[in-house]
Amino acid sequence: MTQAQPVGSHAMMQRDRASASLGMIVERNEPGHAVVSMIVRDDMLNGFDVTHGGFIFALADTAFAIACNDSHHVTLAAGADITFLKPTTLGQNLTATALLRVKSGRSGIYDVRVTVDDDVTVAEFRGRSRTTNLPVPTRNHL
Amino acid sequence: MTQAQPVGSHAMMQRDRASASLGMIVERNEPGHAVVSMIVRDDMLNGFDVTHGGFIFALADTAFAIACNDSHHVTLAAGADITFLKPTTLGQNLTATALLRVKSGRSGIYDVRVTVDDDVTVAEFRGRSRTTNLPVPTRNHL
Amino acid sequence: MTQAQPVGSHAMMQRDRASASLGMIVERNEPGHAVVSMIVRDDMLNGFDVTHGGFIFALADTAFAIACNDSHHVTLAAGADITFLKPTTLGQNLTATALLRVKSGRSGIYDVRVTVDDDVTVAEFRGRSRTTNLPVPTRNHL
Amino acid sequence: MTQAQPVGSHAMMQRDRASASLGMIVERNEPGHAVVSMIVRDDMLNGFDVTHGGFIFALADTAFAIACNDSHHVTLAAGADITFLKPTTLGQNLTATALLRVKSGRSGIYDVRVTVDDDVTVAEFRGRSRTTNLPVPTRNHL
Repeated sequence: MTQAQPVGSHAMMQRDRASASLGMIVERNEPGHAVVSMIVRDDMLNGFDVTHGGFIFALADTAFAIACNDSHHVTLAAGADITFLKPTTLGQNLTATALLRVKSGRSGIYDVRVTVDDDVTVAEFRGRSRTTNLPVPTRNHL
Repeated sequence: MTQAQPVGSHAMMQRDRASASLGMIVERNEPGHAVVSMIVRDDMLNGFDVTHGGFIFALADTAFAIACNDSHHVTLAAGADITFLKPTTLGQNLTATALLRVKSGRSGIYDVRVTVDDDVTVAEFRGRSRTTNLPVPTRNHL
Repeated sequence: MTQAQPVGSHAMMQRDRASASLGMIVERNEPGHAVVSMIVRDDMLNGFDVTHGGFIFALADTAFAIACNDSHHVTLAAGADITFLKPTTLGQNLTATALLRVKSGRSGIYDVRVTVDDDVTVAEFRGRSRTTNLPVPTRNHL
Repeated sequence: MTQAQPVGSHAMMQRDRASASLGMIVERNEPGHAVVSMIVRDDMLNGFDVTHGGFIFALADTAFAIACNDSHHVTLAAGADITFLKPTTLGQNLTATALLRVKSGRSGIYDVRVTVDDDVTVAEFRGRSRTTNLPVPTRNHL
């Protein structure tokens, strides 16, 4: 096969049960740029009938993971900060857009904006990544 | 009924489908102090076979929400920072312990440590809360 | 006088002894966009002969304060996160560029990149602002 | 000399011009535990007559650096988050107390509380450290 091997984010997403189980759809998967969307389900609501912060974070974190796994080595989330700006609820379609902010050696910073349908920002996430020496698992390892 | 009305965290958790659907167990629910546990399921694993950061965050966030909803007004998460220290995987029992760090007016800071069975710390979370004027929804509103 | 009253950041910077004492130069002062520079002095070095993190933070914080004081009400820093990417030292010219990321009600998020002469990023700062009801002090109050 | 060589924080502070120039006093210097105080000077005030956030951060950052330099290898600040809770002003005596939260491999998390005289918390800081392979510079290298 003469085609270039895709970077880590592709193999990673084929194996990601967590993002799949939450109904996430990968709309864009490029080095340093990812877009992922998800519709808020009833089992994602907290006791105040708003989307539990964990699911907003999970959506942003998946977009971050795709954007930062741009090589054939595993890149992990070292940490992240999230600010919640507006509540969302059942049936709303959330979109997380991740962009590389800066890379410096093995460290990277990626910004992820989470919006609802009409481009209102509901959360801002900043992820801190760390690239390891581990090779990305391939499809054959499934 | 002569019994004192429980604070917001109790009514909140009775209505929280998100935490319930993730199999979280509330082990402690006191003002400023909460303990919540969860066993990592297959549908919580990411493409590297480790627990997706979103579910670690969700566990910590639920503990944080319980600890900070210590009155009859709704307290919301304004934001949070999480540092991931060690990967976890299928079948591990995660415990999140939230403690009030400081309150100042309507703002609060709560620290949540996430550990695995043998008290190894896998993540540290710091939540920033904001108390609103909204009354906590009661059971009758379900 | 028929001229429009300048926004808060102008009056603020005329009174800011801290930024002045550190030799900061305001290169750009616009709503949501500020550029401030500073040359690292000997009294800004820590015990490892690199610029003390407090002075990198102070430079970014001043750029943040200018960018977010875009009205006639005082806007305060509620908090900030900084990531240090590269050490700097004596005599280097640091530049902090602050840009509005998002505003939502009284809350705002501003990103500040700190670079050295040749556009190498040495730190990334994300500030969280909160706008108050207080009017900005005017020159007459000096 | 038969005495054990002090850990990095001692050599570091003997060389730290930044902390000295701000009038910081080290009240406690132990592995994982540091206390540093500083009186707010006129040249530390911002345009709203309150202590510039950079100096609050600098005080906390020095306490953090002392607490985390507990070996003979240089430990650096990878980043930090600070929340500002109350304004302070001219003449107030600020105290920063740093405590180790957790260490995991080369990474560490340290919490620093900044208080004024009567134990009112004015800021909370969480530092993220990274230990390098570099030996701590000794006094002879001055």
